[in-house]
Amino acid sequence: MPDEVLNDISHRRYNPLTGSWLLVSPHRTKRPWQGAQETPTKNTLPSYDPKCYLCPGNKRAQGDSNPPYKNTFAFVNDYSAVKETQQDYHPETNKDDVASLLLQARPVTGRCYVLTFSAKHDATLADMTPEEIVPVINTWTRIYASHLSPSHPLNGQAAYVLSTIPENPDGEVTPPKHQLKNMQIFENKGAAMGCSNPHPHCQIWTTSTLPEEPGKELVNMRKYKSDTGRHLLGDYVKLELEKKERLVWENDSFVVVCPWWALWPFEVLIISKRHVRALVDLDDKERLEFAQAVQEVARRYDNLFETNFPYSSGIHQAPLDCTEEEAETSWFHMHFYPPLLRSATVKKFLVGYELMAEPQRDITPEQAAAKLRDCGGELYRKSLQ
Amino acid sequence: MPDEVLNDISHRRYNPLTGSWLLVSPHRTKRPWQGAQETPTKNTLPSYDPKCYLCPGNKRAQGDSNPPYKNTFAFVNDYSAVKETQQDYHPETNKDDVASLLLQARPVTGRCYVLTFSAKHDATLADMTPEEIVPVINTWTRIYASHLSPSHPLNGQAAYVLSTIPENPDGEVTPPKHQLKNMQIFENKGAAMGCSNPHPHCQIWTTSTLPEEPGKELVNMRKYKSDTGRHLLGDYVKLELEKKERLVWENDSFVVVCPWWALWPFEVLIISKRHVRALVDLDDKERLEFAQAVQEVARRYDNLFETNFPYSSGIHQAPLDCTEEEAETSWFHMHFYPPLLRSATVKKFLVGYELMAEPQRDITPEQAAAKLRDCGGELYRKSLQ
Ligand SMILES: O=P(O)(O)O[C@H]1O[C@H](CO)[C@@H](O)[C@H](O)[C@H]1O
Ligand SMILES: O=P(O)(O)O[C@H]1O[C@H](CO)[C@@H](O)[C@H](O)[C@H]1O
Repeated sequence: MPDEVLNDISHRRYNPLTGSWLLVSPHRTKRPWQGAQETPTKNTLPSYDPKCYLCPGNKRAQGDSNPPYKNTFAFVNDYSAVKETQQDYHPETNKDDVASLLLQARPVTGRCYVLTFSAKHDATLADMTPEEIVPVINTWTRIYASHLSPSHPLNGQAAYVLSTIPENPDGEVTPPKHQLKNMQIFENKGAAMGCSNPHPHCQIWTTSTLPEEPGKELVNMRKYKSDTGRHLLGDYVKLELEKKERLVWENDSFVVVCPWWALWPFEVLIISKRHVRALVDLDDKERLEFAQAVQEVARRYDNLFETNFPYSSGIHQAPLDCTEEEAETSWFHMHFYPPLLRSATVKKFLVGYELMAEPQRDITPEQAAAKLRDCGGELYRKSLQ
Repeated sequence: MPDEVLNDISHRRYNPLTGSWLLVSPHRTKRPWQGAQETPTKNTLPSYDPKCYLCPGNKRAQGDSNPPYKNTFAFVNDYSAVKETQQDYHPETNKDDVASLLLQARPVTGRCYVLTFSAKHDATLADMTPEEIVPVINTWTRIYASHLSPSHPLNGQAAYVLSTIPENPDGEVTPPKHQLKNMQIFENKGAAMGCSNPHPHCQIWTTSTLPEEPGKELVNMRKYKSDTGRHLLGDYVKLELEKKERLVWENDSFVVVCPWWALWPFEVLIISKRHVRALVDLDDKERLEFAQAVQEVARRYDNLFETNFPYSSGIHQAPLDCTEEEAETSWFHMHFYPPLLRSATVKKFLVGYELMAEPQRDITPEQAAAKLRDCGGELYRKSLQ
């Protein structure tokens, strides 16, 4: 490849989705390593924990009980980050009033859900089969579909998935009365990522505002489209399928890559090959293939350092309330941000320089992709049990 | 205050320095706390550690020995994140070449220094007196001054400080031959912030490019200035001195505030009251008063949870190579980003939602400032020793 020099020189790479740069220091991987060498971690959790507030049948913090659910179960977070109804606050910005310029605040309302992935306390996406992950994706799809605005350009697709994906027999969430702007589905996995309960679950935060990250991505995808007439992520998928050096895995519908602009050591992006605007655009086959892609990422992560790999992941797709043009600009993808760098206990810290100046990484995305390509076999801990 | 409702409602606040929003969830502080209650930590380190590569007289990784220095000692990082000289790389961006748009990289060169704050292995800025911190600030000032470009608008000030602040008798660094664009001074303190050596020290990374964060700040400060004819941070300092609810401490030359847009639970900003563009603008009295401000922050942090408080801190000032207008736009300030939330062991994780959607905090900056105002007494561990 013509860019081989980038394996050696310090350089910046451009993230076209966010419009920002990051510093890459490939030569720092030559640093001697004096840290711990770990032995593979076994699964030591029970498959049911009577004290877990997410296990089927158990009591939650505020007194409610979970049903004896089979696969997934969604409920409103007992301590949501946003309130559903609250006092009004209508500040005005006025060029001549310094306080109105420098002390700006705007109200945000919404609702936060918790969603379990499995009834089993000790399952992770890496332990589950793609077929077992399909119910998770079906639930995501139904929740997204049921929260779309009445005038949403994807309403036809939403009605279709709501009538074809079976309802969850263990109960479903109903959207709040006020129309919300955005839905962020994300998972924090592992104590290193601030997760306090190992029972497999994700969170879904809906808000009356479009948050910073999906907002920046929309701006940059829109700009690319108006400059070139094509989709940024559509072009990017084609490029990575040609170049191959950052490709981790693919099936008919999705690619798994370590993106060119990856910040986290083993950061991964799952991108749909065709133009999928949101979950409701996926058909049955694509939902299964998405489950396969998610399973590949989770299993390869665990195999990499033979540990229960921590990460934060999240889905970006069309907002809940948007114009035809915004939906058309959106391109379905899922980010995985894992902090581990060299082993189960050595992580990359995004601290001093990263916070004050610019994100920095050592190992290149090409080196990371090569390692993830090579650890696709059976989940390492299967043979340890 | 008219904004009292912000103590209760979920809202977004605007960071005028970076031009971005963050989510504030004050009601989440009502969450019950089941976590650990800690006992105050004592200092258990020796004042000299024969195995520490930063202690006076000791050997470093690549074989060099430290001089028997008295206060500060600076040397080139044995594993710098940027190289000083390297192969060329001159990519071209071409609208019709997709790879040139989506796989963009640019070379970055520079030099990284490590600087000790004290000869004592067990000292921290909180343990040191302002008078003991002055040599640190003097060294920062001399290093910054000696790296300015030959045509820099602050060259007069640089020449003055280089002739009035005495040279470090234990040796000084000389700048590389190639002119660099930016100098980022920062400290990572504590294992929680990726610091592997408790010997008090900071890092200084110089680069041929202007990094993202100071770049964004310059853009936003410039825009404010052209919109209003005044300085953003100048206006902000005045506002906080009037409002008082986010003020932690002040002396003649500096204010210490929890900024309106703080993301980290106990984030703090030290801002110069008058228009100081860079370290070289500070006179003797101001350097002492800056040392006092730094000491106040460090000591209050340690007193807050009676622990050796982790944080990343960093100075923003005029770039090493800049125009008259850029220097004029710059306003000297120092950020402190500490992760602790409720106690010595409970930290705020910037994970899932924060990474995928938008930074989020629970406790408000006003509540944080009130707590920091109240813990200004003697360093808690003095009476434990
Ligand atoms: O250079 P150090 O101290 O080994 O490394 C530390 O600070 C750097 C700059 O903030 C970070 O990039 C590293 O992740 C961190 O561990
Ligand atoms: O809501 P949880 O799981 O208690 O909290 C976790 O995820 C949130 C969303 O990413 C973060 O804001 C918290 O810092 C983290 O600990």
